[in-house]
Amino acid sequence: MTSGHLNGELAIVGWLEQAIGKLPSPWILGPGDDAAILRQEPGHDLVFTTDMVLENECFRLGEAGPALVGRKALAVNLSDLAAMGAKPVGCLVSLALPKDEGPGLAEELMKAILSLAGQFNCPVAGGDTNTWRGPLAVSVTAIGKIPAGKAVRRHGASPGDLLFVTGPLGGSILGHHLNFMPRLDLGAIIRESHASAMIDISDGLSLDLWRLCKASRCGAMIHAERIPISQDAHRESELHAAGLRPSTPLMHALNDGEDFELLFALPQENLAGLMSTWPASSPKPAIIGRCTNEQTMLIEYPHGLIEPLEPHGWVHQFGQK
Amino acid sequence: MTSGHLNGELAIVGWLEQAIGKLPSPWILGPGDDAAILRQEPGHDLVFTTDMVLENECFRLGEAGPALVGRKALAVNLSDLAAMGAKPVGCLVSLALPKDEGPGLAEELMKAILSLAGQFNCPVAGGDTNTWRGPLAVSVTAIGKIPAGKAVRRHGASPGDLLFVTGPLGGSILGHHLNFMPRLDLGAIIRESHASAMIDISDGLSLDLWRLCKASRCGAMIHAERIPISQDAHRESELHAAGLRPSTPLMHALNDGEDFELLFALPQENLAGLMSTWPASSPKPAIIGRCTNEQTMLIEYPHGLIEPLEPHGWVHQFGQK
Repeated sequence: MTSGHLNGELAIVGWLEQAIGKLPSPWILGPGDDAAILRQEPGHDLVFTTDMVLENECFRLGEAGPALVGRKALAVNLSDLAAMGAKPVGCLVSLALPKDEGPGLAEELMKAILSLAGQFNCPVAGGDTNTWRGPLAVSVTAIGKIPAGKAVRRHGASPGDLLFVTGPLGGSILGHHLNFMPRLDLGAIIRESHASAMIDISDGLSLDLWRLCKASRCGAMIHAERIPISQDAHRESELHAAGLRPSTPLMHALNDGEDFELLFALPQENLAGLMSTWPASSPKPAIIGRCTNEQTMLIEYPHGLIEPLEPHGWVHQFGQK
Repeated sequence: MTSGHLNGELAIVGWLEQAIGKLPSPWILGPGDDAAILRQEPGHDLVFTTDMVLENECFRLGEAGPALVGRKALAVNLSDLAAMGAKPVGCLVSLALPKDEGPGLAEELMKAILSLAGQFNCPVAGGDTNTWRGPLAVSVTAIGKIPAGKAVRRHGASPGDLLFVTGPLGGSILGHHLNFMPRLDLGAIIRESHASAMIDISDGLSLDLWRLCKASRCGAMIHAERIPISQDAHRESELHAAGLRPSTPLMHALNDGEDFELLFALPQENLAGLMSTWPASSPKPAIIGRCTNEQTMLIEYPHGLIEPLEPHGWVHQFGQK
């Protein structure tokens, strides 16, 4: 971890080291050296994920403000940990800060990151702070742990497994994509209930279901009326009603993305176990359909109409890598 | 790890998953899921470092070309692992690619990263590929391992310890900053020889020595004629000779940065052990001076003149965090 050459960057790095403080066990060393040190815990696997959020692609800095941008940069990574059934261990945060912004930007970003990190016991173990003549970029790497061999991957679903989502979908552009809660607690419960496959819905239900099916070499039949549709999906549909490409709330729930709910498959015999351990404080997950042994995705509408479900924005080619 | 919404990005991600292939043990799962999975090895600590390289700050894409940029992005992180005495375990690579460049840019970057990664047994375990309307940014997180409790930090040096550097310094802007070899083998040998503190020289000998001294709560006396000065430091001095701010080769060796040699402290009684295990293929490390119990840095010139050594670009304030 280096700090660049500018006094401004060095000042930010100094502030950060103070703000982060001493890390809890199993971290032996946090920021301030060439690398952070983690003592290994036998009996666990570690999982690693990394995501960048980029100005004008993933957020508009002027609209969202630095706090929600920093929060999102960590939250999307925590969502990936949740999708494996992992518990956070820590994270590393790299910033590319526009030179025409003051050090206040870094401070606001990092305060929001440290706040969410504290909420999920995911200490910031290091990072890299830079300024440049480019837009804001925040790159986070998150580390999680899982009892050895127990990670829930995308590829374990079998025909007949039930398909679930943990919450309402669609219209996240109206705000949810910036303030969603990563489903870490639910991810761990789903793992302990022996889910066969899991993914977080980052690119839209239709595309992420396609990924899960492709990895598992199965298909899916889902039921339109069982898909939980968010209020924002309805609002988005209304906003588009007068436009050139009117859309239904269902279309937004299927294709919008950045819901960061969990999509998972579970053998039917594990259903009772899942429901008995589901936290009372969380709405029950919605059963949206089943895995099938056809290598295709279908959606059934009320009154029995069945149509192919296309993964939005992607040419549907099963069987190809 | 997500892939964004564009078919272009999805195509790059597909290419990458093919190019990376199956990871060696102790990786259980590489790219293509929500997170990569690493089986823990008892008896080892893990170390984590992250560095971003940014267009027009750390490189000029037109001059360096994508291959050297990709190489540098990984190499600076490997240098941080070397500075702890660690052995690489793997890395994660995130790309922010300018939209006006074709997918060839990502391919050239990643080929160079995979080549260096292969050379140092540091498999690419995951990443995040994005396109945006900004300059090129490459963010790498590297993971290394060290026998438990044996990491060489910055803070262990004591008065009397000898100070070493592993190679010639200065003038890296002429090319060395793009094609240096991370000193991983030497870092491990230095650790095994019971060095008391170590840092890689990324921001210049004077500043990085200051960091080592500050962390160790000691000072240093170094000897100008013992500092190994690179040919490029001489060339840089010649290039500046006719300019407004002429410089000596020594000034470049002290202050230029991006040498990525190792600076370390070693108790004198461990010197024989270090020299007996030093690889015959590497030039012997230069003993540039000693740690002192004054909290200040001094440099002695031939004929006995002694002056304070200022960390370049940084207000010298010992005792302050």
